[in-house]
Amino acid sequence: MDPVAPRVSRAAVWTAHGVEIRDVDVPADDTLIVRVRLATVCGSDLHTVTGRRGGPCPSVLGHEAVGDVVRPDPRRGLAVGERVVWSVTATCGRCPRCRSGRSAKCAVVRKVGHEPFAGDWPLSGAYSQYIALPAGVAVQRVPDGLDDPVAAPAACATATVMATLEAAGPPAGRRVLICGAGMLGVTAAAACAEGGADVRVTDRDAERLRVAGRFGAAVDAGGPVDVLIDFTGATTAIEAALPRLDIGGVLVLAGSVMPGPALALDPESVVRRWWTIRGVHNYEPRHLAAAIAFLERTRDTYPWASVVSAPVGLDDIASVLTATAPGILRAGVAP
Amino acid sequence: MDPVAPRVSRAAVWTAHGVEIRDVDVPADDTLIVRVRLATVCGSDLHTVTGRRGGPCPSVLGHEAVGDVVRPDPRRGLAVGERVVWSVTATCGRCPRCRSGRSAKCAVVRKVGHEPFAGDWPLSGAYSQYIALPAGVAVQRVPDGLDDPVAAPAACATATVMATLEAAGPPAGRRVLICGAGMLGVTAAAACAEGGADVRVTDRDAERLRVAGRFGAAVDAGGPVDVLIDFTGATTAIEAALPRLDIGGVLVLAGSVMPGPALALDPESVVRRWWTIRGVHNYEPRHLAAAIAFLERTRDTYPWASVVSAPVGLDDIASVLTATAPGILRAGVAP
Repeated sequence: MDPVAPRVSRAAVWTAHGVEIRDVDVPADDTLIVRVRLATVCGSDLHTVTGRRGGPCPSVLGHEAVGDVVRPDPRRGLAVGERVVWSVTATCGRCPRCRSGRSAKCAVVRKVGHEPFAGDWPLSGAYSQYIALPAGVAVQRVPDGLDDPVAAPAACATATVMATLEAAGPPAGRRVLICGAGMLGVTAAAACAEGGADVRVTDRDAERLRVAGRFGAAVDAGGPVDVLIDFTGATTAIEAALPRLDIGGVLVLAGSVMPGPALALDPESVVRRWWTIRGVHNYEPRHLAAAIAFLERTRDTYPWASVVSAPVGLDDIASVLTATAPGILRAGVAP
Repeated sequence: MDPVAPRVSRAAVWTAHGVEIRDVDVPADDTLIVRVRLATVCGSDLHTVTGRRGGPCPSVLGHEAVGDVVRPDPRRGLAVGERVVWSVTATCGRCPRCRSGRSAKCAVVRKVGHEPFAGDWPLSGAYSQYIALPAGVAVQRVPDGLDDPVAAPAACATATVMATLEAAGPPAGRRVLICGAGMLGVTAAAACAEGGADVRVTDRDAERLRVAGRFGAAVDAGGPVDVLIDFTGATTAIEAALPRLDIGGVLVLAGSVMPGPALALDPESVVRRWWTIRGVHNYEPRHLAAAIAFLERTRDTYPWASVVSAPVGLDDIASVLTATAPGILRAGVAP
């Protein structure tokens, strides 16, 4: 068969007892196979392994990565050796939600790095030498000048930020407050600053605020804002910031992805202040394209690579599935 | 001076002791003066006179009306005898909010039918033979074929509905649930039905639901909806309907114009279901133009005049500042 695609992939399988490295058969059909160059560890994987977030177990985690095509995929027009990133979602393209442009909520959505190891897509995650990408996963080429540590977060952090900012509206001339200076908050700060906004970021962690300062965020000094973006998912943080939202303001919720306390919302304020509140979860293929374009455009403006740690090998992955060092927003894994 | 504009107007002055009919000087300057043909009584005036809603007192109330120009207004291009409706807000056109297209929230906004009688705009309300309309009030001509009872609600109910539906997005093919079958709810039902939506309306009052049925609303049978519009301002009603909002759904709050209990909003639902929540309060001049165009377009489709009572004279206005008869959504006043 194909001279390049391997028959077996070493993969980190997350089980109830921890992470085990196993040899996994690579599908022998025409599924797109990518060799993972670098995966970055999204916070949601940390929540998964600590049990704060549900998910199939065992499974191969990892949904932020960059890799090389090792089996040609004529349907996607991909040749062996092309460097790519890929969407978190595998979508059917046919259900009403896909057809209405909301493929992230596809009726039969499956997710990269979230599928059961015992199912028909064991190599769904990027903590593996090779990943299988079925037809419904959007794939985006990475320009040559974009280094792996810059490109890897595109498929979760950066693309979700692109969807979040689309929901927030054009940033030019607007006062933006971002709650949470993790990878998404810092990326959103950079994108809003690039777009001409006055950007402030809040976080409980002083080191993260210092990082945000390198990505276009000013020190928050209070006062009204036009756009409020939450990546913390903390109801108290949202409630504390909400009164600062000016007339015509937009609140975008992107961090509330786990059950939590209700948000006490004053409906009279929503009405009299013409507020808009929007939720964003995952993203569409266009946001992945926008993510790569944004990273390419700003690769010399912001120190993207500085917030990704030097990668560990697959054998050491357990060491980075707990927490990151100060100033590091994404741990790297080079399988 | 002008041969048509009067020097004195009989006006219903709402005072702490009730409504008194007084003779009020008509401004002798070049302010636009309109003879009120028909005013309709908005629910907010009922709330004002019963003390549930704050407002300057004494004042001349009334902000939904149709009338004839009695003094030419070259700046607006209006000649004597033209039949017009006019906006609720008087705006400066120069402040940042006006310039940003949100003139309803003009920094120095004044409101038709809401200004203190003792101030510099005593004839601000339509419960008067003549009303004075300063430069910042948008004026819209009424087509000949549009009867007074159809046109009168344009400047509050219909225009606010136009703003509400703009916030909700295009209705075609969407499942719309409207909470509250008052004048705004019924008008919104008609507009959504005209726009190709599947429209259901809820209300505690069976008679109002029957009225809504004549304006395109089907009987609500539960199930998911794409658009949820609240005109009740009742937190319990909003919370009861909210779980029915489908993925990508839009909730527009337009009724919460008085202090009330907080809405308990699950942020995870907002995020995972990609909800949008929007507040709408008053409207822009374009919505008044859209209101007249909509009423003109649907004048033979919906029985608009049937929901406005035969008008009472100014001397009997107290009788209609309490409540309306079953099936009547707007009391009429012909000063």
